[in-house]
Amino acid sequence: SGLVHVKNPHLDSMEEDVLYHLDLGTKTHNLPEMFGDVKFVCVGGSPNRMRAFAQFMHKELGLAGDGEDLADICAGTDRYAMYRAGPVLSISHGMGIPSISIMLHELIKLLHHAKCRDVTIIRIGTSGGLGVKAGSVVITDMAVDSSFQPRFEQVVLDDVVVRSTELDRDLVEELLTCSKEIPDLPTLIGHTMCTYDFYEGQGRLDGALCSFSSEKKLEYLKRAYDAGVRNIEMESTAFAALCRLCGLRGESPAAASA
Amino acid sequence: SGLVHVKNPHLDSMEEDVLYHLDLGTKTHNLPEMFGDVKFVCVGGSPNRMRAFAQFMHKELGLAGDGEDLADICAGTDRYAMYRAGPVLSISHGMGIPSISIMLHELIKLLHHAKCRDVTIIRIGTSGGLGVKAGSVVITDMAVDSSFQPRFEQVVLDDVVVRSTELDRDLVEELLTCSKEIPDLPTLIGHTMCTYDFYEGQGRLDGALCSFSSEKKLEYLKRAYDAGVRNIEMESTAFAALCRLCGLRGESPAAASA
Repeated sequence: SGLVHVKNPHLDSMEEDVLYHLDLGTKTHNLPEMFGDVKFVCVGGSPNRMRAFAQFMHKELGLAGDGEDLADICAGTDRYAMYRAGPVLSISHGMGIPSISIMLHELIKLLHHAKCRDVTIIRIGTSGGLGVKAGSVVITDMAVDSSFQPRFEQVVLDDVVVRSTELDRDLVEELLTCSKEIPDLPTLIGHTMCTYDFYEGQGRLDGALCSFSSEKKLEYLKRAYDAGVRNIEMESTAFAALCRLCGLRGESPAAASA
Repeated sequence: SGLVHVKNPHLDSMEEDVLYHLDLGTKTHNLPEMFGDVKFVCVGGSPNRMRAFAQFMHKELGLAGDGEDLADICAGTDRYAMYRAGPVLSISHGMGIPSISIMLHELIKLLHHAKCRDVTIIRIGTSGGLGVKAGSVVITDMAVDSSFQPRFEQVVLDDVVVRSTELDRDLVEELLTCSKEIPDLPTLIGHTMCTYDFYEGQGRLDGALCSFSSEKKLEYLKRAYDAGVRNIEMESTAFAALCRLCGLRGESPAAASA
């Protein structure tokens, strides 16, 4: 049917669903009217950048007006920012798995309540590149954890549930094809490693704590490269797992720094 | 000596330390001049709320001006917001362990470079209460994980290091004493449970995914209560572990909702 699934039997019996961190709700907002025709959702960490992206899309799509004064749909909260340009929603998710997870739970319910169909979701965040030219775009075929495994361990109450983190193979190929039309945009397909920590978890030598040597760091990053990892960030495993479970066609191409 | 410790031998040999997510650095800013006399750091998730807190502190401390136009010290980035009122810094950390960890690494280096002494850090975020009156303040004596254990598992490259999450006992008692001077402020000491997920991890029945029954949820929360947990949030174990390791006197009293 192309609809977005929620997998929660309790939702049907709820009189009202408040999407608390988005400052939206089923009783306070007409979600089908506001969002029913959304086809693409683009997400990234920084609110300012997601605003700039919505303005860019506004221009690309040739929509009326200059797009400079797009309103933040989530203006009533400072947890996330959300902008709209035609069929494209642009939403910030903050940094890290817990932050993107809260947003995705509420976004998936939003798309469900709004009866959206055939929605594609794309994470367009930044990442650290591994053996790739700075500025390259890495299109993620698989999100892996810090042991290079394609899995997301979700704690449900005090049980650990393991979820798959494969992304939509067709979408990966489509994006690669698109990239070829743009000059000077080095693009490749690779695994994306997702960590819970930016400093100790990604082999950085400049955190407040660092207990490993430069050699140990390089040895770890080399093992990651040999396992197919081409960039490192902090959201992709949770993103891939949640999109997959809820029938959202998802992809995570991220611009990689050196 | 009361100084803030960094535990990273690599830092000494770095010519410049860029605190990237705070938009500050050792070459671009005179950190001892800007921050050398800071004695208290208060942190919480929401940037707007941390601005309001700095304005409140500005008035409480009787500083010159009305405090309405406090400048965001991290205005060059939208990752975090930082305000100052006399010896008090007020900083936002976003939601979840990865987000607060990035901020704390860079804050600890900032306090180190600025040669601050005897700094107390307090997290004043919100939390979900467990068997306590809505609006109560829970002063955390120990941050625990989703298995109710006082530990924080930090992934360092691909090893897991277990760190203690005990908080400063004297500070707990001081805060409790302070609370008694304020009328109608129900305050208690208890364990704070820190989770990686807001919906499935905290027993919520209203996420996009929910695989457990209301009975299973209540059984889990009862076990948490019996283990001494009085509130639930998403940052305290990492906060406690990092403060402890770096010689910051830390505490995490959080207002609990019902």
